[in-house]
Amino acid sequence: MNILNDEFYMSLALDMAEKAQGQTDINPVVGCVVVKDGRIVGMGAHLRRGTGHAEVHALNMAGTEAEGATAYVTLEPCSHYGKTPPCSDRLIKEKVKRVVVAAVDPNPQVAGSGIERLRSNGIEVITGVLAERSERLNETFNKYITTGLPFVTLKTASTLDGRLASRTGDSKWISNSDARERVHGMRHRHQGIMVGIGTVLADDPELTTRTATPGINPVRIVIDSQLRIPDQARLLNTEQADTMIVTTAQADPVRASQLESRGIRILRCGEGPHVDLTLAMRMLGEQEISSILLEGGGRLNGSMLEAGLVDRVTLFFAPKLIGGDMSTFTFDGFEKMNQAVTLEQVEVETLEDNVCISGRTRYHHL
Amino acid sequence: MNILNDEFYMSLALDMAEKAQGQTDINPVVGCVVVKDGRIVGMGAHLRRGTGHAEVHALNMAGTEAEGATAYVTLEPCSHYGKTPPCSDRLIKEKVKRVVVAAVDPNPQVAGSGIERLRSNGIEVITGVLAERSERLNETFNKYITTGLPFVTLKTASTLDGRLASRTGDSKWISNSDARERVHGMRHRHQGIMVGIGTVLADDPELTTRTATPGINPVRIVIDSQLRIPDQARLLNTEQADTMIVTTAQADPVRASQLESRGIRILRCGEGPHVDLTLAMRMLGEQEISSILLEGGGRLNGSMLEAGLVDRVTLFFAPKLIGGDMSTFTFDGFEKMNQAVTLEQVEVETLEDNVCISGRTRYHHL
Repeated sequence: MNILNDEFYMSLALDMAEKAQGQTDINPVVGCVVVKDGRIVGMGAHLRRGTGHAEVHALNMAGTEAEGATAYVTLEPCSHYGKTPPCSDRLIKEKVKRVVVAAVDPNPQVAGSGIERLRSNGIEVITGVLAERSERLNETFNKYITTGLPFVTLKTASTLDGRLASRTGDSKWISNSDARERVHGMRHRHQGIMVGIGTVLADDPELTTRTATPGINPVRIVIDSQLRIPDQARLLNTEQADTMIVTTAQADPVRASQLESRGIRILRCGEGPHVDLTLAMRMLGEQEISSILLEGGGRLNGSMLEAGLVDRVTLFFAPKLIGGDMSTFTFDGFEKMNQAVTLEQVEVETLEDNVCISGRTRYHHL
Repeated sequence: MNILNDEFYMSLALDMAEKAQGQTDINPVVGCVVVKDGRIVGMGAHLRRGTGHAEVHALNMAGTEAEGATAYVTLEPCSHYGKTPPCSDRLIKEKVKRVVVAAVDPNPQVAGSGIERLRSNGIEVITGVLAERSERLNETFNKYITTGLPFVTLKTASTLDGRLASRTGDSKWISNSDARERVHGMRHRHQGIMVGIGTVLADDPELTTRTATPGINPVRIVIDSQLRIPDQARLLNTEQADTMIVTTAQADPVRASQLESRGIRILRCGEGPHVDLTLAMRMLGEQEISSILLEGGGRLNGSMLEAGLVDRVTLFFAPKLIGGDMSTFTFDGFEKMNQAVTLEQVEVETLEDNVCISGRTRYHHL
C-alpha cells in the first residue's frame, strides 16, 4: 500500500468513508480524495444526510487546485438533484481532469449516469478500483436503495454449544469485553436495533450504544404482537434513543394510545396473532430505516431466518459449554442439510479467546 | 527458527515426535536429536510400544560420534526398566556430554529421576526447552500415566447454530472436505473412538480411519446399555478395527455371548439402567486405552461433559444454519453462566470457510 498508485489514494478515501459509517442515515458512506501533481489537495467524506457530499467537501478544500486534478471517489458521483445538487456537475465545473471510482452506484437514479455525464464532458473516468471494499462498506445502502427493505444483520453472543444464556436465563456475561465493545460499535453503525418482547421481559435491556467515546443510538424496535411491554421497561424510560413497537391489528388500542402518548411509535404489521415480519420489514423501510441490527432471542432469530429476512449473520462465540435449551436459533429447522442457510464471504476473527464468525446469508429453502 | 541454538534442534526432535502420534499406544511420543561439533549425528523417535526409545535410535545412528555430543530429547530420559532398558543409562554409557530436555516426565516412575541420574554421572542437563509444545504433544500420555484414565477428546462437526444434523437426521455433509480429513487424522492419533448406540442406529457408521495414506484404526467403543446393536451394523461387519461394547449388568447375557462369539469385547459398567460413564472410563483405562476420540451424538456428549470426563473439545463449524433440535450437546444445562464449562488454551483455525475451535476443558460445576 506504499506504492503511489490509484489504490493508494482510493484506500484513504475508503478509510474516511468507513469511519463515517452510522452517520449518514439512509445515505451511503462515501469518501473522496483530490490529487494534483503528486500531492493531495483535497479530502472529504459524506458526514450527514442533507449535507455536502464527499466530492463537495474535497473540492471545497482543493479550491482552484481542482482544475486538472484527479478525484478519487469511493462511489460513482451522483447525477441527480437529491437534497444537494449533483456532484458530477460540480466535478465538471471545477475542471477536474480524471475521476477514479471504486463502485458504481446501484441507486437506479444514478446507476452509471453519473459516470456517463463526466465522460461526455471530456473527463477520463476509471472504475472498479477497490470496488469490493466499497461495496462491502455500503452493503446496507445497496440493499435499501434497490429494494426499499432494511438490511438486517443478525448478531448473537453465545457459548460454543450455541446457547444465549444458561437454562435459567443467566447471560451475564457470555462474551469477553472485546466482543461486547464490538457489539456497541455495531449498534452505532445501524439505524435500528431489534429485539423480541421475550428479551425485553427477560433481560429488560436498554439497547443503547455504550462506547468509549459517545456513539449514535439506533431506534429501538420491539416485536411485541400483544403490546406486553411493561411501563417500567428500561426501553420506555431511557431518553437517549427512540423506541418503536411493531405489533398487530389485534393489539389493544387503549394500550397503543398510552404508549403513543409516551412518544413511542406503533407499527401494526398484519392481522395477528403474530407480527407479519415480512410486512414489518417493508413498513420499517418506509419509515426510512435502512439497516437493522437484530439482537433477538432464539425464537425471533429463528423466525427472521426462516422468513429469509436476514442478510448478514455475525456470531460471537465464547469458549464455554453450558447446555440447556436457550438456543441462538429456535425454529423447526429444515428437513435436509442442503436446505440449510449458508454463509458466504465468511470472515473469522479472534478476539482474545472469543471468536467472531460473520458472513452474508444465502437461502436454499425458500 | 533459523538461529542455530537449542530450540533449533529441539524443534526437529518435536517434529519427529509429533508425526509419530498415534503409533505408540499408551507410550508417550518422544523425539531425539544428537548433535556434535555443529552437525546432527543422530536422530530418532519412539515408533512403537515395546521397541526402541527415541534416544536409543538416535544413539545407534550416532555410533561413536555420541561421545562428547549433546542429545536433545523431548521428554526426560527414562531411568527404569520397562519393556526396554533405561535410556539414561545408555546416554551415560555412550559418554554424551550434555542433555537438553523439553518436558520432565510426569510418569511417577521417572519424574526427575532420569535427570538426576544423568547429572550424578557428570552430564550437564538443561530442561524446559520448548517444554510447552512437548507437553501438548503428550497431553494424553500425561493424563493416563498419572490417573490411569483415558484422555477424552470430544469432537463435533456442526452448523453455526450447533446442530449435528437436520431435524430429520440428515448430516451428509455438514463440514467441508478439509475438516473431514482432519477428523480422520484425529482417529489415527487416538486409541479408541467412542459413540453412543443412538449414533449407531441412526447413521450406521464404520468409524474407521480413512486417510489419503493408510492410517491406524482405533478400537471402536459403543456405549450400549441394552445391547441394542443389530447384527448387520457395519461396526460388527468391518474387519479393519476391533469393537468393544460398554453396557451394564442388566444386559441380556445371551445377546452378550452372541456378540462375544463374534470377537466383540463386552464391558459391564454399573448396575444400569444406564452405563456408568465414570466407571467406564476407569475400566477402559484398565484395558490400556489411554486416549479416546468421542464422536457422540448430543446426548452422549452432554452426559460425558456433565460428568466431567471430557479433557479436550475440538469443534468444527460449517458456515450454515439449520434449526431443529439435533444439538451438539444435549443436557439439562447449568443454572448459572459461571458454572459453564470453559475452554482454556483455545486454538482457532480456519479451514477454508469452516472453523475449528479447540481447547482444554475446565469444570466449574462439579
